[in-house]
Amino acid sequence: MLNKFSYRIYYEDTDAGGVVYYANYLKFFERARTDFLRALGISQSDLVNKENLVFVVRKCAIEYVSPAKLDDVLEVSVAIKNISAASILMQQEATKSGVTSSRLEVEIVCVDRVSFKPKKIPQEIKLLFDVR
Amino acid sequence: MLNKFSYRIYYEDTDAGGVVYYANYLKFFERARTDFLRALGISQSDLVNKENLVFVVRKCAIEYVSPAKLDDVLEVSVAIKNISAASILMQQEATKSGVTSSRLEVEIVCVDRVSFKPKKIPQEIKLLFDVR
Amino acid sequence: MLNKFSYRIYYEDTDAGGVVYYANYLKFFERARTDFLRALGISQSDLVNKENLVFVVRKCAIEYVSPAKLDDVLEVSVAIKNISAASILMQQEATKSGVTSSRLEVEIVCVDRVSFKPKKIPQEIKLLFDVR
Amino acid sequence: MLNKFSYRIYYEDTDAGGVVYYANYLKFFERARTDFLRALGISQSDLVNKENLVFVVRKCAIEYVSPAKLDDVLEVSVAIKNISAASILMQQEATKSGVTSSRLEVEIVCVDRVSFKPKKIPQEIKLLFDVR
Repeated sequence: MLNKFSYRIYYEDTDAGGVVYYANYLKFFERARTDFLRALGISQSDLVNKENLVFVVRKCAIEYVSPAKLDDVLEVSVAIKNISAASILMQQEATKSGVTSSRLEVEIVCVDRVSFKPKKIPQEIKLLFDVR
Repeated sequence: MLNKFSYRIYYEDTDAGGVVYYANYLKFFERARTDFLRALGISQSDLVNKENLVFVVRKCAIEYVSPAKLDDVLEVSVAIKNISAASILMQQEATKSGVTSSRLEVEIVCVDRVSFKPKKIPQEIKLLFDVR
Repeated sequence: MLNKFSYRIYYEDTDAGGVVYYANYLKFFERARTDFLRALGISQSDLVNKENLVFVVRKCAIEYVSPAKLDDVLEVSVAIKNISAASILMQQEATKSGVTSSRLEVEIVCVDRVSFKPKKIPQEIKLLFDVR
Repeated sequence: MLNKFSYRIYYEDTDAGGVVYYANYLKFFERARTDFLRALGISQSDLVNKENLVFVVRKCAIEYVSPAKLDDVLEVSVAIKNISAASILMQQEATKSGVTSSRLEVEIVCVDRVSFKPKKIPQEIKLLFDVR
């Protein structure tokens, strides 16, 4: 299962401290989750347009270990730790040249696109995750 | 007509060059347009939810004169230059301590929220603009 | 001690899900920490330029309770929970119309602007926090 | 000369209108300029760290033709139109599936990283651009 993805750091990602702005790591982590789903054949725009489902973040915990800088390439991993009826617990890590830059534990919930109420994750998606 | 609004610059707005990232000036200009409309009694979320109308930018030209930095306060003006059936031409300026930081000329179009096709600007909005 | 600050939500803060993008809550939380420091007379740009010190985030945990939307005003609080030699633990909450939107627990570290190594928080800043 | 680069659109890039937020196109255009320079062997972090030079945008004009959406891939081109002692005029286009989404004309200036005063573009960079 493809679960590592690489992203370049551009000026847009940095701040006046000379490093990646702390909120922007969450963008890289989310790109990796999206690309992980896409690699499994799951399109989030299809999910929302055809099934009225959106994955939203319920909670997350980030640890900042080593700052990333302009022109660095971050390699971001995705690992599924647990799946329940409507939610998924994932662990992610962003490394540069093999050194940990930051870590994320994130809980994602499948919700209705309008009401934002939790909905069961479609069975065909669960099967793709293949967590046995 | 209230047409000047102040915004503080935070870390999120800056980049590793130590100044405001060039795309982020467009955020301040848009906040000012939104606050200008709000001061006239126009809510964009009402516009989209009740009338299915969205104002979108068709084109803009920015001139960067003097960089803004962390903790600066930008004062951003809004001036309407021309209104046609579906579009509005505005000129905006961002200053810090009276010195020009950047200038924007922007053309806004009123469109349907789904089709993105141009729609007539509601007459009651035009009256609020009071351009005679 | 002034510890609540209000921020309007603009288009820039939202995403195609129709609500504030999950990373952007961290921007509002950071604005509040910055404005909290400013209200105490602490300027982060002075800190970095005169004392070569930067406050960086070492870890944070966010809970998303209720999504915020375009045109909402978020009221964001800052409370200091603990201070050690080089770090500060804070709890923050973002509410809209009195309803909790999200909560943050965040650990901030005082570091050298170049080496990013921890430095003692200046005594005059600790006194301002007045945590006894 | 490699002058087309592809970027995926994620939730972070969109807004509550369901399309890419107008300021964010400038991020994609800048990524393409950076990747264009990198393909020529020019590293912006080397430029700033070793030669104290930064390329900044003096002015730009954007035309929004067709909105890009979540999951789209934008192909962004870079073409040099003119080079003077300290500045470069470029034209860029972002397309999706061959259809123009937006166009940019941008003037970049080479400046000192501290004073932000214009500096001559290093001759070895000009040679790489190979505009004859």
